[in-house]
Amino acid sequence: MTSTTPPDVAARVEALIPRFRLTRLLNQDQAGRRISLLGTIDSQPGVLVAERAAFATDDDHLSSFSTSLIGIKNLGANDIYAWFLASTALDEDQPPDLKLNLIYPCTDKHVKKYSAQGLRVVTETPEIYAKYIRPYMQQQRVQGRLNWVFNIIEGRTEQEDVIYREHGEEGFLLLPDLNWDRKTIPSLHLLGLVERRDIWSVRDLKRSHITWIKHMRDKLLDSTVKIYPNLDKDQLKLYVHYQPTYYHFHIHIVHVALEAGNTQATGKALGLDNIISQLENLQGDDNAGMDDVSLTYHLGEASDIWEKIYLPLKEGGKVEI
Amino acid sequence: MTSTTPPDVAARVEALIPRFRLTRLLNQDQAGRRISLLGTIDSQPGVLVAERAAFATDDDHLSSFSTSLIGIKNLGANDIYAWFLASTALDEDQPPDLKLNLIYPCTDKHVKKYSAQGLRVVTETPEIYAKYIRPYMQQQRVQGRLNWVFNIIEGRTEQEDVIYREHGEEGFLLLPDLNWDRKTIPSLHLLGLVERRDIWSVRDLKRSHITWIKHMRDKLLDSTVKIYPNLDKDQLKLYVHYQPTYYHFHIHIVHVALEAGNTQATGKALGLDNIISQLENLQGDDNAGMDDVSLTYHLGEASDIWEKIYLPLKEGGKVEI
Repeated sequence: MTSTTPPDVAARVEALIPRFRLTRLLNQDQAGRRISLLGTIDSQPGVLVAERAAFATDDDHLSSFSTSLIGIKNLGANDIYAWFLASTALDEDQPPDLKLNLIYPCTDKHVKKYSAQGLRVVTETPEIYAKYIRPYMQQQRVQGRLNWVFNIIEGRTEQEDVIYREHGEEGFLLLPDLNWDRKTIPSLHLLGLVERRDIWSVRDLKRSHITWIKHMRDKLLDSTVKIYPNLDKDQLKLYVHYQPTYYHFHIHIVHVALEAGNTQATGKALGLDNIISQLENLQGDDNAGMDDVSLTYHLGEASDIWEKIYLPLKEGGKVEI
Repeated sequence: MTSTTPPDVAARVEALIPRFRLTRLLNQDQAGRRISLLGTIDSQPGVLVAERAAFATDDDHLSSFSTSLIGIKNLGANDIYAWFLASTALDEDQPPDLKLNLIYPCTDKHVKKYSAQGLRVVTETPEIYAKYIRPYMQQQRVQGRLNWVFNIIEGRTEQEDVIYREHGEEGFLLLPDLNWDRKTIPSLHLLGLVERRDIWSVRDLKRSHITWIKHMRDKLLDSTVKIYPNLDKDQLKLYVHYQPTYYHFHIHIVHVALEAGNTQATGKALGLDNIISQLENLQGDDNAGMDDVSLTYHLGEASDIWEKIYLPLKEGGKVEI
């Protein structure tokens, strides 16, 4: 990147930066990697925004990357996994500006997981759902992959974590998501798990479930603000994934300030309240449901559903689940 | 952060990093601020993931931040705005690891814009929409704010940018979004603008529009892959915002690999294909539409709609638009 600024202007504005005197931090966002500072230069106010830059990815820099690091400090190690802080700076007064993860020795699975993966957008009609996706879900459910969910529901694990629970056919429970540190409120992430095993995903929600879903929504909100009293209900966002990671219906409850990455993106996440409203306004009787609509979402090209179902459908081949 | 690793283990894994020999870059994501490298240590494979860390925000570091920067290089300057690259590193062989923006002198509006803003989740029922939001939209439309849109539609500006166009009552045009650099395909971002002025937002879409919306969707996809032949239609994601930034119906067309930030999040973005399917399955006649459903979304606490409509509604006060 070259500057198009006249040299005298460039020199003048460059000289402004070191004269910036901090008044206060206005904001920190982008997962902490951007700060907006209010300050003064010659007693006039100014805003200085600093953002961590992208890594240079030319061969020279990548090849010397691991040897250029300073002050590598291990934070933890478990089996083949280890994590660290490190610096690109030679100045030891500066805080570490890098987080590192090392997987060593690694397998082909790790290489695949950390490689760039293409994404594809698919439209799942009610027909594709019934013919291919539902049987695929069934197959995934019988391989013991849901044991961890059943362990929670049946009271064998994580009982000390349960924030709220109702038992029975319409029962459900609320507990912290594994990715949340359980203390940082602006990144709060809880999970609502239903007890019943006949609702695998949003596709199984029907008009006849509306009262139940609303009850569940209200209780999830109420119990969250009860346990975290500095939180208001309108600071919570409820959504579900489609496709979800596992086929037992669950609701994500997050702080509305939580940095929304790919996991909350359209094409992956559906707002729970919008689903309720969609069900309420759906044509048909009580049996009408989310299996009557088309859902458009994106998938990794390395995912089973893409490889086994949508890619063959796209190429006119035979689907073998 | 202190390590819980026994000192001998910590020392052993810390010594692994500088011995990492690069094989290749596996991936770069998080807006370029995370790299995943494949390499070897003693001829065994390993994956090294490096991520730019959050800024330290204690007073000491923030106060000395502007004076600790090295190699400040101006990239451009316009009026009170200037942007730069800079380094936290003393090592001049390292590429700059920071981007800076300076607004100087700044106004209170800048301070507000760059300050942390709370978000609130609201549920907009058909009644709230009709009574408050639609009149608010009307008010926004008459203040000349849409002149830039009308300039494009009426052929006065940006005509050289138009990728595809159909004229008339059902007309629309496709052009690059201002935020796209017009060359980086994985961050492609185009805009579909309708010609007609009676569709202000997704709220105005009705069952009677389904054929038209599908035609528009197909043409937007077709013309995008025609002009960018390395792209497949199933690599494109179409969505709309609610609330949108301006009240003239427009569709966002983005590469599915585009880093999904808050702008694509549930509570802000709605997938176009899901809206089409929702309309198709909506109860009622041809006149039934998206103004019959509740839409739940989030708003900044500093936004007009929050301050003038939802906050008074929440507090039981009087709404004055």
